[in-house]
Amino acid sequence: MKYPNSRKTYSKPKVAYSNRGMSLEKAINKTNSNYLTDNIALIYKKPTPIQVVKVDYPKRSAVKIEEAYYTVASTTDYSGLFMGHYIDFEAKECSSKTSFPFSRIHQHQIKHLENVNKHGGIAFIIIRIKILDKDFLIKVEDYVNYVNNSSRKSLPINWIIEKGYEITYNYTKPCDYLETIKKVYKI
Amino acid sequence: MKYPNSRKTYSKPKVAYSNRGMSLEKAINKTNSNYLTDNIALIYKKPTPIQVVKVDYPKRSAVKIEEAYYTVASTTDYSGLFMGHYIDFEAKECSSKTSFPFSRIHQHQIKHLENVNKHGGIAFIIIRIKILDKDFLIKVEDYVNYVNNSSRKSLPINWIIEKGYEITYNYTKPCDYLETIKKVYKI
Repeated sequence: MKYPNSRKTYSKPKVAYSNRGMSLEKAINKTNSNYLTDNIALIYKKPTPIQVVKVDYPKRSAVKIEEAYYTVASTTDYSGLFMGHYIDFEAKECSSKTSFPFSRIHQHQIKHLENVNKHGGIAFIIIRIKILDKDFLIKVEDYVNYVNNSSRKSLPINWIIEKGYEITYNYTKPCDYLETIKKVYKI
Repeated sequence: MKYPNSRKTYSKPKVAYSNRGMSLEKAINKTNSNYLTDNIALIYKKPTPIQVVKVDYPKRSAVKIEEAYYTVASTTDYSGLFMGHYIDFEAKECSSKTSFPFSRIHQHQIKHLENVNKHGGIAFIIIRIKILDKDFLIKVEDYVNYVNNSSRKSLPINWIIEKGYEITYNYTKPCDYLETIKKVYKI
């Protein structure tokens, strides 16, 4: 069947429901901000580490940084506290239709996530598969297990869909990963 | 009695035992680094938040920041994970011989520490009293309780000594606050 203006009719609700015009980072930041407001959890994006080389003091009260460089992050993007549990994760978008390269996540970040696990925290990776417009939570132990037992250099998308846990979303929490955590880790 | 070179004899061991030639920040950073190496805990200093205004790309691979400013920290200096517990604290040196002004810690930092407490984490302040060369751990609830029930604008040093918990130290952990935490929070 054909309706007049069918394109408009079908595309509008999609945007309105999914609220996914935004990047994964923006979706997580908005979600975290609402977790904080709703008194659900305290999860923050860690500031980007910057090495300051040269500063100027144009006023006594203000310091102007005139030369600085981004340094490689020693840990992950996000950490925080949810119902007494330490939460730590890295988030990545995946544009490929077939796989997610291991090289997208640094070895020292994986090491950090494994450490979090070992010390009793909850450690994972969020991967957005853009072609599906879906976010998945991957336990760090599942990720490491795959990497160690594979001769590949990337995670197949099918593996992510099968072994990962799909993250639901709504308007105020466009990447509601704590709902997923409650189920996966039985909190 | 007078010994030859008595000054040298008395000053040297003091430095060697206490390892306190360093600032509180350096002492905590060294301690955290050794907690990590010894597999005791994962506690990190949060990077200083910087607002980047202008960048240049002299090479394809490198980004040079040409104008940026320090922004006010929204939370605290340190956070991490110890035996399944979320740890969060602010650290301050106190040069005064009589008191520690409330104004040294921002209201939003206290609010953050109270939030950590509410969500099941361990939240406190470390104050170094320089005149005594001693570090004390103050539970955030004790701090807030004093502030709310006092007409003063500062914590008296005597209150810190009485209500705080003295932090021990050794060569590799010059501010060994996790030992204090184990006792105070019965972990």
